[in-house]
Parts: sequence; structure tokens; C-alpha cells
Amino acid sequence: MFSGDLDKAMAGFIIANGAAAMGDDVTMFFTFWGINILRKSEYVPVKKGFLEKMFGWMMPRGADKLGLSKMNFGGMGSVMMKKIMKDKQVSSLPELISTAQSLGVKLVVCTMSMDVMGIKEEELIPGLEFAGVATYLGEADQAGVNLFI
Amino acid sequence: MFSGDLDKAMAGFIIANGAAAMGDDVTMFFTFWGINILRKSEYVPVKKGFLEKMFGWMMPRGADKLGLSKMNFGGMGSVMMKKIMKDKQVSSLPELISTAQSLGVKLVVCTMSMDVMGIKEEELIPGLEFAGVATYLGEADQAGVNLFI
Amino acid sequence: MFSGDLDKAMAGFIIANGAAAMGDDVTMFFTFWGINILRKSEYVPVKKGFLEKMFGWMMPRGADKLGLSKMNFGGMGSVMMKKIMKDKQVSSLPELISTAQSLGVKLVVCTMSMDVMGIKEEELIPGLEFAGVATYLGEADQAGVNLFI
Repeated sequence: MFSGDLDKAMAGFIIANGAAAMGDDVTMFFTFWGINILRKSEYVPVKKGFLEKMFGWMMPRGADKLGLSKMNFGGMGSVMMKKIMKDKQVSSLPELISTAQSLGVKLVVCTMSMDVMGIKEEELIPGLEFAGVATYLGEADQAGVNLFI
Repeated sequence: MFSGDLDKAMAGFIIANGAAAMGDDVTMFFTFWGINILRKSEYVPVKKGFLEKMFGWMMPRGADKLGLSKMNFGGMGSVMMKKIMKDKQVSSLPELISTAQSLGVKLVVCTMSMDVMGIKEEELIPGLEFAGVATYLGEADQAGVNLFI
Repeated sequence: MFSGDLDKAMAGFIIANGAAAMGDDVTMFFTFWGINILRKSEYVPVKKGFLEKMFGWMMPRGADKLGLSKMNFGGMGSVMMKKIMKDKQVSSLPELISTAQSLGVKLVVCTMSMDVMGIKEEELIPGLEFAGVATYLGEADQAGVNLFI
């Protein structure tokens, strides 16, 4: 998960949860904007440099604050999409994330991206693992399905 | 195919048709905005709710109406790209789609996305199959090449 | 590499260099906007048609001129990202590219895209190979990890 868009995050978790429900071992690796999907929705006071603070302030705080990759219209598209999904009884992204965790999907966060974007472990939801590109490659190399989303 | 951008759709079909021409079994799975690639260009009267109508009205109607993922400039980039492709005798996206169908590439549409976006079967071009994420995973798991575009 | 965004290009090269450092054979295939990553930063006088000239003029000239896929703010986001990376001693994209070349990562450019976008071989950095979709499919089919970025 490179992207921090609501629609792409949903696609990623629907595929991951589908595979986990079919009995596959599933690992999701979160890097760059994808890390925003896993931020806590509340403000967490941590020590940051000036640019880190700016980045943290501009980036969406968690799964419920993400925009769409298309037709977002300053957030209105995202609100509309969530309304439709609720009407159609499709799981929301926060629900998909907690389903993933209860199905045993491993959620791994890229430590280098955290460092660059100034995101601290306390700002993220619980139940995550932390690793680098070598871990990603080790898992991906053995995977039947491996996507860059 | 998650994306409904002209450039990404072309990349997807060029790869699919290349593989099919080399004798591979090829399945393309269309989800979210990617479904717009397969809409008929004419208006099809179907019963829809208010938000479904709005979505249908705002999303591009078929392969010839898509924009570029970059430098679209309100559609001008897309027109420019199509002009260049024609000058250079590169197949257009509608041509690539019909080539895919004649090469036996299976085009499968995600039923959950159709439901969320309010797209009905009658609004799509003929010759498609309809299925969910389990079907996608079944195909992808055995595939030599599998991309999220 | 389909995308010509700074952040996505960095993700691509970090994965490629990681795999190469672990002893894997790595091939990167550059198509559409991805080719801009490999342009020389200086102007190279070559003969072009009118639309080719316009495309060439509007597209970023090389790894140091790319924007971010999100929060680019007319280039300010890109400058900010590069400043942060420098402060944190993370390799820049031009450094990642030269590391890739010294690790033996094969950089292959899509000839059809070059033709459509009017990019000539002299406009690209040295050390590249040139091929079409069949070559991409041949490499991808045998790869353990294969991503569309």
C-alpha cells in the first residue's frame, strides 16, 4: 500500500481480507502515503521538527479522513462514496481494517517512510509490525499474488 | 484494472493483448473506476437512485471519453494523445478492447463495484463476465504476471 | 515504471536496489510517463514534430524535475520532500538511479512509448536498453516479484 486514497485502500483491504478468508497467509506492507491509512484519528503529541510537523498536519489522520483518487472535489466525493457504501451495507474502511486484523492479516509499516514523513509509532493504530524493504521483498518473493496499490 | 484513465487503460490492454498473442491465458478484472472503460458510449435508460445517477453522470461513459492520469488539462491532453496515436498509427483504446475480445482475453467485471457505483449490466459493452473478489484471487494466484493498474 | 512521479519512482528504485543488493536479477521497464525519470536534465536538440515538441516541453526533464503524486502544490511539495530526504540522509532519486546501474539493474525503455511521446534516445541518460512489450512479458513471467508502479 503506497497510496493513501480511500478507494485504493478499500481495494487493498478487500483483496487482503478475501485472501485471508480463503485461508491464505496475507501481509500488507505500508509505505509513503499508505501509512496515513493507519494513523490514529486523534491528535497524538509527539516531538517533531518543523517540516515533520507540516507534513503531519497536511496529511490525512487515519482511515476515516482519506480522500478519493478521483472525483474527490475537496472531500465531497469521499463523503458521497461513504454514504453510498453505508446505504448498500458495504463495510467501511475502518471496519475492513479491523476485519483484516481479526483474520490475522499482518500489517507491516515501512520504517524508512516513517522516518522521512516524521510519523511516530504512537501516532499509529495498535497491532502493527515495523520493518524495511528487505522484509517486504522476503514476503513478496514467496507470494502468489503481490500488488503495488 | 482499478483505474479509469486512458493512459493506464491502454497500458493494461497492450500488456494483456501482448500476452494473449504469445499464447497465454489472460483475464482482466475491472473494479472501481476501471469499470468506466467498459461503459457503452450512448446513454442507457436504467432505474437508479439519486446518488447513483449523480455518479453515473459524472463518470466517463466508455473508452473514448477517458482522461489522462497526468497532463489532462480538462480533456485537452487526452485529445492531444489520441491525435498523436492516430498519426503514429497506434491502435486506439476501443480498438485495443475489441482486439482483446477477439484474442479471447476474459473481461471480468467486479459485481460489488457495480453495485456501489450503480452501474447496471445493460450499460456495459457486450461479451463481459461478472464476478467478485474470490474469482479474481483464484485467477491471480495461478498467474505468472498479475498487476494492479 | 509507468508513473513519472518522484515518490513512486523512489519506491520503484528502492525496491529494485534492495532486490539487487540481495542478489536477485532485476529488470525495470519504463513506459509512458515513467520514461521522464530517465531524461537528461539538459536540453538536447533533436528533430521533432509540433505535438512531440509540446509534449517534450511540458513533461519533466529527468529525475530531479519530477513532482509528487500527492501534495505537490506546484512543485513546493517536491522541494520539501527533497529537503527532508537530504536532512535525513536518504539517497536522492538521481543517486538511487546510479546505484541501480552500478548494482547491475537492467533499465529497459519501452520503444512504443518513446515513439508516441516523441522522446529520442539522445535525450535519455546513458546505459539503457530499448525494447517492447514482448520483452517485458518475457522477463515478468519468470519474476518472483513484478509490480506496476
